[in-house]
Amino acid sequence: MNSKQSGRRRFLKDSALLAGVAAGAATGMIRSASGQETARETMDWKVGYQPDVPEDLRKYGQPSRYGTLLRTYNPARRATDDMHTPIQDTMGIITPSSLHYTVCHGSAVPDIDPREHRLLIHGMVDRPMIFTMEDLKRFPSVSRIHFIECAYNGSPPERKDPDATVQRTHGPTSCSEWTGVLLSVLLREAGVQRGASWIIGEGAEAKMRAKSIPLEKAMQDAIVAYGQNGEPVRPEQGFPLRLVSPGYEGPHNVKWLRRIKVGSQPFMAHADNPGHTALRPDGKGRWFQFEMGVNSVITFPSGGQRLSSRGFHEITGLAWSGGGAIRRVEVSTDSGRTWKDAVLEGPIHRIAHTRFRFPWSWSGQEAVLQSRATDERGDVQPSLAQLEKVWDVNRDYWLALRNSVPQFNPIQSWKVTKEGSVGNAIWEA
Amino acid sequence: MNSKQSGRRRFLKDSALLAGVAAGAATGMIRSASGQETARETMDWKVGYQPDVPEDLRKYGQPSRYGTLLRTYNPARRATDDMHTPIQDTMGIITPSSLHYTVCHGSAVPDIDPREHRLLIHGMVDRPMIFTMEDLKRFPSVSRIHFIECAYNGSPPERKDPDATVQRTHGPTSCSEWTGVLLSVLLREAGVQRGASWIIGEGAEAKMRAKSIPLEKAMQDAIVAYGQNGEPVRPEQGFPLRLVSPGYEGPHNVKWLRRIKVGSQPFMAHADNPGHTALRPDGKGRWFQFEMGVNSVITFPSGGQRLSSRGFHEITGLAWSGGGAIRRVEVSTDSGRTWKDAVLEGPIHRIAHTRFRFPWSWSGQEAVLQSRATDERGDVQPSLAQLEKVWDVNRDYWLALRNSVPQFNPIQSWKVTKEGSVGNAIWEA
Repeated sequence: MNSKQSGRRRFLKDSALLAGVAAGAATGMIRSASGQETARETMDWKVGYQPDVPEDLRKYGQPSRYGTLLRTYNPARRATDDMHTPIQDTMGIITPSSLHYTVCHGSAVPDIDPREHRLLIHGMVDRPMIFTMEDLKRFPSVSRIHFIECAYNGSPPERKDPDATVQRTHGPTSCSEWTGVLLSVLLREAGVQRGASWIIGEGAEAKMRAKSIPLEKAMQDAIVAYGQNGEPVRPEQGFPLRLVSPGYEGPHNVKWLRRIKVGSQPFMAHADNPGHTALRPDGKGRWFQFEMGVNSVITFPSGGQRLSSRGFHEITGLAWSGGGAIRRVEVSTDSGRTWKDAVLEGPIHRIAHTRFRFPWSWSGQEAVLQSRATDERGDVQPSLAQLEKVWDVNRDYWLALRNSVPQFNPIQSWKVTKEGSVGNAIWEA
Repeated sequence: MNSKQSGRRRFLKDSALLAGVAAGAATGMIRSASGQETARETMDWKVGYQPDVPEDLRKYGQPSRYGTLLRTYNPARRATDDMHTPIQDTMGIITPSSLHYTVCHGSAVPDIDPREHRLLIHGMVDRPMIFTMEDLKRFPSVSRIHFIECAYNGSPPERKDPDATVQRTHGPTSCSEWTGVLLSVLLREAGVQRGASWIIGEGAEAKMRAKSIPLEKAMQDAIVAYGQNGEPVRPEQGFPLRLVSPGYEGPHNVKWLRRIKVGSQPFMAHADNPGHTALRPDGKGRWFQFEMGVNSVITFPSGGQRLSSRGFHEITGLAWSGGGAIRRVEVSTDSGRTWKDAVLEGPIHRIAHTRFRFPWSWSGQEAVLQSRATDERGDVQPSLAQLEKVWDVNRDYWLALRNSVPQFNPIQSWKVTKEGSVGNAIWEA
C-alpha cells in the first residue's frame, strides 16, 4: 500500500478542508511535523485510576462514570414508569439489558425467588403440568436474538414534539439474545388437544397482565425465556421467566410468566382490548393485529443532535420487522426525492434489530434525512403520505391526535439546519 | 396437531420413568387430574415486590438479587486480579459486559475522561495524527461479534485440579459485540509508508502494556473499538478505547489504547516476550504465534455440576476459533469412541463464540463427555494424545508443569459418575 492509494480513502480530510481549521472535529487532528515530537506530547498525558472497588462489585462489573448511557422516562406516561432505551447512543444491535425499555403498566416489579416460581400449563391439554425453573432448564434450549417493541412505539403523541429526540420517538424498542425453551416443546409435553387454537399467557405481577396468542404462533417460534444477553432475564423484563413472542406487540411478551392456558378462542383478557387494533387498507379495523410492521429510524443524526462540521458523516440507524429478516434499507438525504441503499451489518438475524450505515457528505445546506426498510416478505415501510391515504386523513389529523396509535411505522424524517442542528420533521416531509 | 403425535417428542417423561417419582426434576411436575384445580393452586402463589428503587438506578437497570452470575478470581493469579467469566452459567453467545473476563497484569483500572483521551498514530506514516474520541466517531464504523480470550486459557495449571469447574479451566474467554472504526481506515488516513510491516498498540495504564501486531492483521480486521454490547466499552475492558484484534491472543486487544506506532519490524515490547511462543509440529518454537486455535468446551454438564436424574439432558457448550467461523462441533459421550454432530445455533458469527447443543439420555452409568470443534479452514481441535505426540511428552509432563502454556486447546473431558456428579477428567481420557 502507498499513501497515494490510501489518500483516496481519507474521510476527515475533506471535512477539515470544507469546515476550516476552527471546526469541531477538525481541531483534534494535530498533524505534527515530526512523529517523534507528537509521541512525546502523547506520553505526557496523565491518567487517574479508579478508586479501590469493593470485591463484590468487581465480580459484577460496572460502566464508566463518564457518559454512562441511561434510560429516560416517557413524560407522557410517567405514571406507568415507562422508560425508553437511549437508541441515539446505543451501538450495534444488542441493547444492554440495563437499558432495555420497560412498560410496567403501573405495577411494581415482582421480586421472585426462582426456587419458588412455577409455570402452569393447562386448559385444552392432555396432561396439565407445573414446571419448576429446574424442570424448564432440563428441556432442549434455544438462544435467539430478537427485538421486543412497545405496540405504541413511534406513535403520533410521541412524535408530535418538534424537539423530540429519537429516544422519545422510537425508544421503546430493544433487542436481546433470549435463551429458553421453545413453547412448542412444552405444549407437546402437555399434549395439546384437538380443536385448540389459542393460548393465553399470564404474568405473576399484581395486575396479572395476560395476553391471548394464536396457537399457531405459540407453536411456531415463541420462547419461554429464562436468559437475556447471557445472564438470567432481568427483573424488569420478567425474571425469572418471560414469554417471548418474536415480532408480536410488546404485551405478547408476557413478563413474570406463571401460567399458560390453552383454549379454542381468544380469552378476552384486559390486554386483549381493542386499543390494540389497526386500520386495514379497506377501512375496517383489525382487532387481532399482533405483528409489528417493518420499521426503521435514523439514530444519527437525529433530533437534538448537532453536526459539528460540514463534510463526511456516517448516517446510521436501526431497522426491524415482526415479519422476519430485514432485506434492505434505503436512505434519502433530500426529503425522499432520491434513495440509495444503506449497508446492513451482517449476519442479519430474523426479527431482530439490524444496524444500517450510510456514508454522507454534508454540504452545509438544509437537508431532510429519511430511512426506509424492506423485510424478507417484501413489505416496505410506508411514508406518512401513504398512511394518510389508507386512513383517509390529512396532516392535521395526526397533529390533533391525543391518543396513541399502535403499529404506527411511517418513515421518520430529521431535518438538518444550515447551522447543523437536527430536529424532528416527520410532519413537514 | 394431536396428542399422539406430540407424545413422541416428550422429553421429561422418559426422565421421570427412568428415575422414578422421587427424582429431582420429576417432583416439580405435578400432573393434576383437573386443569381447573391446578389453576387455583397456581393462583395462590404469592409474590413480593422490589422495594422502591432510586430513580438513578432505575435509569440503568440491575440484575435480580437471586442467583446473580458473578465472575470469580483465578486463585493462581490473584495478585493480578484475573477474573474468569462464569461460562457454566452464561447462556447463548453474548457475554454480559459485567461478566467479561479481565486480566489486568496488576495495573489499577484507569479512570479516563473521554474528553481528555487521545489516540496518536505515528511512526512510518505520511501524516502523524492525534484523534479525539469525537474524531474517531466521525469515521465509518462497524459492529462485529468477536470473542477475546486469554492466551493462557485452558492451560495445564488451570486444568490440573480434579475439582476444577469450567469457569476455572476455560473462564478467560468472553464474547461481545464490538463497535468502532476499522484500524485500516485510520491507517489509510495517516498514510502508511512503503516498507512498513508491523504496528504496536500501547495502553494508557501505569504499565503502558504494548503489543506488536503484523500490519497485515491491522489492515485486515482490527477494530479501534469504543462500543461493547451496545454501550461504551467498560473501564475494565479499556474504556474509552480498545484495540480489538479478532482471534489474536488477549494482549493484542490493547486496552485504554492511546498510541499506535507503525514500523518495519516487531517492537520487542515487554508483552512481546517469548512466553507467548508455541511449539510447531517439527519441534521448533513459533515466537510470533498470535492466533488462538480452534477450541470448544462443554459447559453443561461440567465440573462441579450434578445431574439430578437419569434420562434426558441437553449437553451444551461453546466453540470458537481465531481462524474464522466454527463449521462443526462433535460430541462424544463414551470417552471418544464414537462422535456425533451437535446442533450449532445460527447465524454463526466469524471469530465468535458459537453455542452448540446435543441431546443426550443419561443411562445412570459412568460416562465421559467430550466436544471437538472444526473451523472454516478445516482445523480440528486436537486430543490431548495428539498434542503429546507433537510435543513428544507423556501425561506426566503436563501434570508436572508449573507454568502456564499458551495456546493449549486440547479436548476437555468431563466424567459423570454413577451418582451423577461431574468432574474434570482431562488427564484420564
